[in-house]
Amino acid sequence: MQDFDYRNPTRIVFGKGSIARLKDLIGPRDRVLMTYGGGSIRKNGVYDQVRQALPGRDVIEFGGIQSNPLYETLIKAVALVKERQVTFLLAVGGGSVLDGTKFIAAAARFDGPDPWAILAKGAPVKTAVPLGAVLTLPATGSESNGFAVISRHETGEKLAFASDACFPCFAILDPAVTLSLPANQVRNGIVDAFMHVLEQYVTYPVNAPLQDRQAEAILKTLIEEGPKTLANPRDYDARANLVWSATQALNGWIGQGVPQDWSTHMIGHELTAFFGIAHAESLAVVMPSLFRHEIAAKRAKLAQFARRVWGVNEPDDLKAAETAIARTVEFFHSLGMKTRLADYGIAAGEAGGKISSRFRARGVKLGEHQAIDAGAVAEILAAC
Amino acid sequence: MQDFDYRNPTRIVFGKGSIARLKDLIGPRDRVLMTYGGGSIRKNGVYDQVRQALPGRDVIEFGGIQSNPLYETLIKAVALVKERQVTFLLAVGGGSVLDGTKFIAAAARFDGPDPWAILAKGAPVKTAVPLGAVLTLPATGSESNGFAVISRHETGEKLAFASDACFPCFAILDPAVTLSLPANQVRNGIVDAFMHVLEQYVTYPVNAPLQDRQAEAILKTLIEEGPKTLANPRDYDARANLVWSATQALNGWIGQGVPQDWSTHMIGHELTAFFGIAHAESLAVVMPSLFRHEIAAKRAKLAQFARRVWGVNEPDDLKAAETAIARTVEFFHSLGMKTRLADYGIAAGEAGGKISSRFRARGVKLGEHQAIDAGAVAEILAAC
Repeated sequence: MQDFDYRNPTRIVFGKGSIARLKDLIGPRDRVLMTYGGGSIRKNGVYDQVRQALPGRDVIEFGGIQSNPLYETLIKAVALVKERQVTFLLAVGGGSVLDGTKFIAAAARFDGPDPWAILAKGAPVKTAVPLGAVLTLPATGSESNGFAVISRHETGEKLAFASDACFPCFAILDPAVTLSLPANQVRNGIVDAFMHVLEQYVTYPVNAPLQDRQAEAILKTLIEEGPKTLANPRDYDARANLVWSATQALNGWIGQGVPQDWSTHMIGHELTAFFGIAHAESLAVVMPSLFRHEIAAKRAKLAQFARRVWGVNEPDDLKAAETAIARTVEFFHSLGMKTRLADYGIAAGEAGGKISSRFRARGVKLGEHQAIDAGAVAEILAAC
Repeated sequence: MQDFDYRNPTRIVFGKGSIARLKDLIGPRDRVLMTYGGGSIRKNGVYDQVRQALPGRDVIEFGGIQSNPLYETLIKAVALVKERQVTFLLAVGGGSVLDGTKFIAAAARFDGPDPWAILAKGAPVKTAVPLGAVLTLPATGSESNGFAVISRHETGEKLAFASDACFPCFAILDPAVTLSLPANQVRNGIVDAFMHVLEQYVTYPVNAPLQDRQAEAILKTLIEEGPKTLANPRDYDARANLVWSATQALNGWIGQGVPQDWSTHMIGHELTAFFGIAHAESLAVVMPSLFRHEIAAKRAKLAQFARRVWGVNEPDDLKAAETAIARTVEFFHSLGMKTRLADYGIAAGEAGGKISSRFRARGVKLGEHQAIDAGAVAEILAAC
């Protein structure tokens, strides 16, 4: 096992009706900025539940945070936080609202001329406006970590930052409010959570059997409960298991003491930035090609994945590894998820050229061995 | 899945040499009370590592906290904390030092005439002196939870309390400092951690597949790594895996959203209080008889335990459940752990009489169904 240093202070309030708990979770004297997305919370009752939980409180609203939240939008909220002296941010939505709200929280307290430096230059975020979350979409795990990914329309960039100051103080997880989600969003959430686990699991062995089994526990549960909740969207138990699995896929726990990859995410972010496909779609397109390209380095863990998660009885590691990739692709297809660039009308050569050029300019090397350079990225995308 | 509300703010600093990190984890202006046990930390180098990590700091010492820490000892430290205006408690030791230090932390800030009420009357602990931990013995999980169990010599009682205010701010887990532990302490730690998982797992199904698999992950890892670290005490990797498993067995995580039992612990505490056997020894003695007594109610989960953890291929649930108990007893024996009251020269009838009388007087009912009354406790102990 590798050394590590881990803390996750987010309080998880899980269950039916838990939005009503907001009144105890936010201080009575806080001035709250409630952030949300395109307005679906007004249709599914979440908006009303939140407002009813906070009668007489000082709450300002900021709606309209997009999927792949835009810097250009968020910076308006930063001005509002400063102008109105907001003391608490309440994110009501999925990963995009959560990520956007983390940026608002960090940028409002940023000590420098331009908060874009948090993303573009890795400027450290030492403090942030406290924030809490009401989750409406199980997918990104953003409700219980300090990560955020923000896009900038002007430059076509999609960049990440992380800060201990950006962990939500609390996350309300009421599976009941997610039952009305459209199937494509549920499907994307399953694939996103699955990929979060694979990024922390499909690397190389470091004698960390507990972490391995915990990663496998989430993968098996997603394989079991994901199709159940898609087949029967009103099944509360299946949805609850999906919600809890998605949170745990990226609350940091399974990644402690083990190597991590994240190259599929880094390449996927660029596909979204250049071509606009959804985050989970980008991951499902990149992973098969990337794992095949890196199969020599990832062989041992892919073979373990095949045997323990997919129940593959194949003694040869390389063959088992190939089967693990094929079975994962089949699983994604069974959920209705496409796995080829051509499925989205994107030319592999064009994607490889644009993205590898950008990585070359940035000098980026990806993966658990930092061995995937711009040339390898072009090869990987050519085979997507 | 059941509803839950969970927060674990403890920062885990894991790895070789991590005691040196103390200087960044404790505030430079804190007045620290360093608590420890019988002095083994002076022999194994931990004392020196702690003092070297805090040069020039304001550190007072309080040694001599016993196994099954005594109220009569701890109350002296409470007076010291008040008299010297201590602002931070640093527990250096295993579960007993940790638990004792939590009581010191709570009692020093207790708003009432007699802090024993925290244990005897469940008086709420709303605040405590902040504390941190340097763990020297993987076993109880106390380094990352808000629980403590305290004994009182005068009355022969052993009682528990819990408070969110008593979570350690940080826990330093350096597996290297545990390599010199005597075999019986390592063995007790393995059994203690194993039993913590069983108390949260062997109840009844509530459709919580992720929690089940996470519990099984810890059990399998203890079965695999426990014997390895006993056979080769200098194997750092095996010890690291044991340390991380023991922490996770009782940091609260696997118990969220599922029923919990804890009757083996409640009866075991009384065996320790009346007859002085070690905590883990008491659990290994009570569990087989208790699980057999409750086999009808626990059958489904015991059968799952048999099939998934012990690899038992038995279609009948009751037979599989019996096999799970037998295999667990065999595992404990293989570690050198005894499982009968007679092994300790304790008469089962006497134990049953004393302990059931005490539970009857307290009106206690135990177990996930609150169905184990004083009469059942007498039957269970008669068969131990």
